[in-house]
Amino acid sequence: MSYGKSKVRLARLVRADRHEFSDAEVTVRLDGDFSATHLRGDNAGLMATDTMRNVVYALAAENPGEPSFELAARLGRHYLGCSDLVSRVHITIAERRWDRLTTDGNPHPHAFVSGGDETAISEALTDRATGVRFAGGIGHLTLLKTTGSAFRGFARDRHTTLPETADRIMASSIDVRWTFSATDVPRAALHAELRALIVDTFINSFSDSVQQTAYTMGARLIENTESIAEVHLSLPNLHYIPFDVSRFDQDGSNAIFVATTEPHGQINVTVVRDGATPPQ
Amino acid sequence: MSYGKSKVRLARLVRADRHEFSDAEVTVRLDGDFSATHLRGDNAGLMATDTMRNVVYALAAENPGEPSFELAARLGRHYLGCSDLVSRVHITIAERRWDRLTTDGNPHPHAFVSGGDETAISEALTDRATGVRFAGGIGHLTLLKTTGSAFRGFARDRHTTLPETADRIMASSIDVRWTFSATDVPRAALHAELRALIVDTFINSFSDSVQQTAYTMGARLIENTESIAEVHLSLPNLHYIPFDVSRFDQDGSNAIFVATTEPHGQINVTVVRDGATPPQ
Amino acid sequence: MSYGKSKVRLARLVRADRHEFSDAEVTVRLDGDFSATHLRGDNAGLMATDTMRNVVYALAAENPGEPSFELAARLGRHYLGCSDLVSRVHITIAERRWDRLTTDGNPHPHAFVSGGDETAISEALTDRATGVRFAGGIGHLTLLKTTGSAFRGFARDRHTTLPETADRIMASSIDVRWTFSATDVPRAALHAELRALIVDTFINSFSDSVQQTAYTMGARLIENTESIAEVHLSLPNLHYIPFDVSRFDQDGSNAIFVATTEPHGQINVTVVRDGATPPQ
Amino acid sequence: MSYGKSKVRLARLVRADRHEFSDAEVTVRLDGDFSATHLRGDNAGLMATDTMRNVVYALAAENPGEPSFELAARLGRHYLGCSDLVSRVHITIAERRWDRLTTDGNPHPHAFVSGGDETAISEALTDRATGVRFAGGIGHLTLLKTTGSAFRGFARDRHTTLPETADRIMASSIDVRWTFSATDVPRAALHAELRALIVDTFINSFSDSVQQTAYTMGARLIENTESIAEVHLSLPNLHYIPFDVSRFDQDGSNAIFVATTEPHGQINVTVVRDGATPPQ
Repeated sequence: MSYGKSKVRLARLVRADRHEFSDAEVTVRLDGDFSATHLRGDNAGLMATDTMRNVVYALAAENPGEPSFELAARLGRHYLGCSDLVSRVHITIAERRWDRLTTDGNPHPHAFVSGGDETAISEALTDRATGVRFAGGIGHLTLLKTTGSAFRGFARDRHTTLPETADRIMASSIDVRWTFSATDVPRAALHAELRALIVDTFINSFSDSVQQTAYTMGARLIENTESIAEVHLSLPNLHYIPFDVSRFDQDGSNAIFVATTEPHGQINVTVVRDGATPPQ
Repeated sequence: MSYGKSKVRLARLVRADRHEFSDAEVTVRLDGDFSATHLRGDNAGLMATDTMRNVVYALAAENPGEPSFELAARLGRHYLGCSDLVSRVHITIAERRWDRLTTDGNPHPHAFVSGGDETAISEALTDRATGVRFAGGIGHLTLLKTTGSAFRGFARDRHTTLPETADRIMASSIDVRWTFSATDVPRAALHAELRALIVDTFINSFSDSVQQTAYTMGARLIENTESIAEVHLSLPNLHYIPFDVSRFDQDGSNAIFVATTEPHGQINVTVVRDGATPPQ
Repeated sequence: MSYGKSKVRLARLVRADRHEFSDAEVTVRLDGDFSATHLRGDNAGLMATDTMRNVVYALAAENPGEPSFELAARLGRHYLGCSDLVSRVHITIAERRWDRLTTDGNPHPHAFVSGGDETAISEALTDRATGVRFAGGIGHLTLLKTTGSAFRGFARDRHTTLPETADRIMASSIDVRWTFSATDVPRAALHAELRALIVDTFINSFSDSVQQTAYTMGARLIENTESIAEVHLSLPNLHYIPFDVSRFDQDGSNAIFVATTEPHGQINVTVVRDGATPPQ
Repeated sequence: MSYGKSKVRLARLVRADRHEFSDAEVTVRLDGDFSATHLRGDNAGLMATDTMRNVVYALAAENPGEPSFELAARLGRHYLGCSDLVSRVHITIAERRWDRLTTDGNPHPHAFVSGGDETAISEALTDRATGVRFAGGIGHLTLLKTTGSAFRGFARDRHTTLPETADRIMASSIDVRWTFSATDVPRAALHAELRALIVDTFINSFSDSVQQTAYTMGARLIENTESIAEVHLSLPNLHYIPFDVSRFDQDGSNAIFVATTEPHGQINVTVVRDGATPPQ
């Protein structure tokens, strides 16, 4: 059983020479035994979700520049300490990308442009019995390449109408989550490194299928970082379908595409380090 | 590992005296061993997600009036039969609510008004080893009552600012999924019955917490229907917060509310029949 | 020049034998001469949009059961009275549809199910010089019929690939706005009557084009209600495209459709009463 | 009267040493006299919206690298030429931002990351009588600064609760449209220049109100570019509200903020060049 607070929008500002700004959405989920309220409506010992929200802001205010992983872990400990009913706390902090602007070629001290939907994800799963586990990730990393992708040799039967292609546009809005097997890891510093590996895999390795690309991303993260136990990737296929102008007696030069959102392919890949115990 | 096709929009029409119309979104997910494409980009035996989509329309066309559960099971068997790589198929058919209009007091033969976001969900999970399991459900059943709900006696600490209330507005957009332990069940007929139980619980039982209401819904479904092994409910709390006009020296009669979507409470409850083996 | 407050979510409750509940989104827009703040950042006499929001709740609390048109007009007068800078106030109140539930065949005293995206719109445009004008309307009235619609005889040229059809599915999410030429009109009572006319036109008159259907709706509203000066309708064409299964050597019985949202046809029609002065 | 096709998703690719990629949504709207179909369902001479869509792809394929303004103008002429019923054509091409990625410090030849919701807008309004007028613009340019913004000295009355602030976070998702008074203008080249002016105004000029900032943007565009007759700006106020932790006996250092989307201030400003005839 679980309950919690979703979409707690927390922005934090550190006014140094350069202002540091974090714009996040926090999700709190408490697992535990809430049978008294379930069965009898007895709310004794039950933390209101409104209180959970207040705690997010109050603890954040104690240290506005704290990295999100550390805030997530502190929140986990706090909620566990508040109620014996709670056995496990799941905190997710998803920070929106704001790119620092430049002015006269230099980084601007306090102005930013939105980086779109991309989020940097910091998770702490704090269990009363087994302690804390961290997971990092990226949401909605949206990449596109106009060549370097094929899809050939797939199964053909009476329902197959898709032509083979040796050169297609490939695009995806990637969600990735990596689970750390240790707690003494430079988690925040790793974020940029792991993001760069994912981007590099997407743009510089030839793709024979979205599945291959997704698996390669996961395998490279595992290879690169000893402390990662498992990587989960979820890649929707953002289709750009060639528009056939030969029906109008025009030359069809594979230059014009119809972008579609419905339906879409969806690829999910989990890569686990050999010998690792997958997190529960 | 899994991949599939999402947001396949399938509408089906049976032109009887009264037209029967179904407007659904189908999701296909195949689980299996796709290591050849993952590791080497070898797509032999891999069904393109575009083919999956074609299959949805082709099989639907064989019997446009077929209940969604049966179509889901047929799709499952079809995909398993197409590729040895696939070990399990997960089909979800979510049908949008269209309410038949009336004309001169009678049901109109072929005209409908949208019933909003609510969907009727039919799922078939077909495993090569263990056969098919069905699950039904409802998405986005959005209910509101203006009294008959309280929230009192919850934990108070230094971060608690929420006042107790003996009379509040309660609203939620309910997602529920019930898993059948048998296959010879009148699944489609049960849908209306189970929906009515959920609505009745919401509107006619006093709520001491959203948790209590959610648990009661699950327990009543289990009691009502022998063939249900497990019920999962997910209830966001759609908040309507009293606006305090006393700050303007006005009488505050608990009549004016601010609706908010961010943040929101989120309640998740799973109720399992005693002795049941939960589905994997 | 204009500024204002959008998405002010106002819910109002009257606790009679049957609770009456209104769930609205209010938009406030002030037109005027704000050159002092534009040119010099001098905000004297400028109402903060946060104050506009407070006013919505404060005035609503004075009479929670007041019809939306009357509240809109009072809000207009209030804002005009607050600042000489303001020449005109535009208030829109869009009420979400909540359908009263039944219990044992009777209307439930205080429980509702969401009616989806449909809104009932009440507008007051209050001008310092010329007084108030009202407009009513409906947002997102989403209707579908499975026959009684054709599209034939349209222009064909080298870029035309759409086949003619004598029997198609027709669906739209209708936005309509009617402008009153008088102020002493039973505006709220007319809402149900005008909605019924629109629905009746959609479902019971054969459609040779969405344009024809939209125009007929507007003409019927004008004919029906003397006090309506002008009707504006906006109808997206929600396409349901037959899926051709003959490519799989199956019988194509026009029973299976692909619903699409991109791209979509969009029909806009304005019908003005002969001799009426269109509102500015 | 008007009708047209919305959400025509057109992607264009030029395979030079560096691939040039444009990902746009095209809107076609035809104004004219469609009374035959309105009144009698007579569709002779009426172009189907499906044909409009085909034309977009067919004309784009004739010159995939053509700037959007030129494509918009060609589309306008084409539709006017197809039907005597049409008197005016409104084409909007909104191109999504895709930022070219770098690899080893150099621009990648064919890989891009999404720039979020921002769009570059190219419009051509082609009138049978008066010829073509162009307008450019930007959609959803989302900027934030953490200081350099105040809001003081505004009107205070009994409904005012907003405190004055000398230092607040300011953020907006800016929509701007500029109308050209001439046709022989380097429209596409101006886009980057005008965008830079808007960004510079936002980040480097102190803001005493969103209204002042918006007006300054418009005035600077008019001053900068002789061929611009009029600028319209629409700025929602994306609120970041300080969270008061003093209620928890904590130090409130103006470092923690609640981001909100409902309700929001909305500022609209139109700046017209002295002596210019505003476009119809």
